[in-house]
Amino acid sequence: MNRREFHLKLAAFAATAGLSSRAQPAMHARASPMPATTQERNIAMVAYPMMTALDLIGPQYAFASIMGARVSLVAKTLAPVVSDTGISMNPDLTFDTCPRNLDVLFVPGGSSGTLAAMTDAATVEFVCDRGSRAQWVTSVCTGSLVLGAAGLLQGKRATSHWLVREKLLPLLGATPLNARVVRDGNRVTGAGVSAGLDLGLTVVNLLMGTEYAQAVQLMEEYAPQPPFHAGTPESAGTKITAKMMDMHNEFLSKATEAALQSKSRLSR
Amino acid sequence: MNRREFHLKLAAFAATAGLSSRAQPAMHARASPMPATTQERNIAMVAYPMMTALDLIGPQYAFASIMGARVSLVAKTLAPVVSDTGISMNPDLTFDTCPRNLDVLFVPGGSSGTLAAMTDAATVEFVCDRGSRAQWVTSVCTGSLVLGAAGLLQGKRATSHWLVREKLLPLLGATPLNARVVRDGNRVTGAGVSAGLDLGLTVVNLLMGTEYAQAVQLMEEYAPQPPFHAGTPESAGTKITAKMMDMHNEFLSKATEAALQSKSRLSR
Repeated sequence: MNRREFHLKLAAFAATAGLSSRAQPAMHARASPMPATTQERNIAMVAYPMMTALDLIGPQYAFASIMGARVSLVAKTLAPVVSDTGISMNPDLTFDTCPRNLDVLFVPGGSSGTLAAMTDAATVEFVCDRGSRAQWVTSVCTGSLVLGAAGLLQGKRATSHWLVREKLLPLLGATPLNARVVRDGNRVTGAGVSAGLDLGLTVVNLLMGTEYAQAVQLMEEYAPQPPFHAGTPESAGTKITAKMMDMHNEFLSKATEAALQSKSRLSR
Repeated sequence: MNRREFHLKLAAFAATAGLSSRAQPAMHARASPMPATTQERNIAMVAYPMMTALDLIGPQYAFASIMGARVSLVAKTLAPVVSDTGISMNPDLTFDTCPRNLDVLFVPGGSSGTLAAMTDAATVEFVCDRGSRAQWVTSVCTGSLVLGAAGLLQGKRATSHWLVREKLLPLLGATPLNARVVRDGNRVTGAGVSAGLDLGLTVVNLLMGTEYAQAVQLMEEYAPQPPFHAGTPESAGTKITAKMMDMHNEFLSKATEAALQSKSRLSR
């Protein structure tokens, strides 16, 4: 069975299971001749050089399980995008060819590439434009800094990678929350890297209902058992955390510059 | 800071932290003029059409954090490989150009593509050859069926995606264990899809020691909080599990055929 066949069968299952009213939030309810499960949906996942591939691939698994969803990697050009761990991916669409009205806009985080994306006019303009109309505006890790640079988190609660959350989100007008996934209105932001798996299922739940999301969780066998208890500064302890913060001093100061630059642009 | 700089700093940290003796398992100890942290390592991650991208990208994040590691996507040709969720990735090496002696060989799972890989002579030959000499032979999800088809799991305990674990691993000479990550000698297999995150950290621990692996876990903020408790057949409950099994009947019967074909080839 290929993925397409799987979708059709999953949709049939969801139809049988019955979708809860949560599957179509009232705020985005629209007249549609199609039942929710077979509705066409456009999901755009922004790709940029030196992004973190896992930020994007975690939720992409879940998004791709949404029946009727056209999940696209969208970049400035169709040239391969190389991630910060060296994964080379081919975009499906450019900023110009991406549909104007999206069901989900998603932005991954990364290292130096994220700072470049925050200060790149074409990227910021694209995220701002599609984000202004998308049903759900989502990010993982430092992807929320790109949303923030596009002015999409002003007055919103949000999260990000623990390294930047408290210092940088406020510069972009957001209220930082120390949580795995934060939803404020139609903004849904995830914490660092691996939080994409939690965000992905959260978004599937919002679009398709709980039983559908649980079926996706079962298929990705998401019953995590990290070999250590070190995924947060609190659990990793002061020694490892201090070292990691020390190693990222330069990144943090450059990110602060990028955020201040965005802040000044947004206030003009 | 880019990933390369991050590696250098992480290595410096690991050197400071002091590596435990577990970082170089005695069975694979070799005379090396370089300290473990800066040792060159070749990690090959097999890519094939219709593999599941998340199976591969989860551990790839962790592998790419190993100082001195050259982490490559290796495929039959350099043509883009499209995953079962539609992610198009560009291989770095072919089966022919991949180094002969690997520190880590990794095989992801997938749907129909995995069955094709199990019965494809070039793929099986490559996995068998590199797996016979690799320091660690690893897989996630139905990737263990490809290891099994290459004869690498005979007499070994192993795991796989819950859908195929109990029925198919024994056909390939392996003893199935219901566990997130199973290590038997130098074989390290992970359960379905998302188990790649747990496997990745497990392998980093084997190669680099606990403190290094914990630092990687902190950087990927791996403190999972799935929105539901449905990642295993037991937790998802009989209704959802039965539906998913029903949807994958055809896959399971084709996978059984592929495994029997492999078994007959291996016994010749």
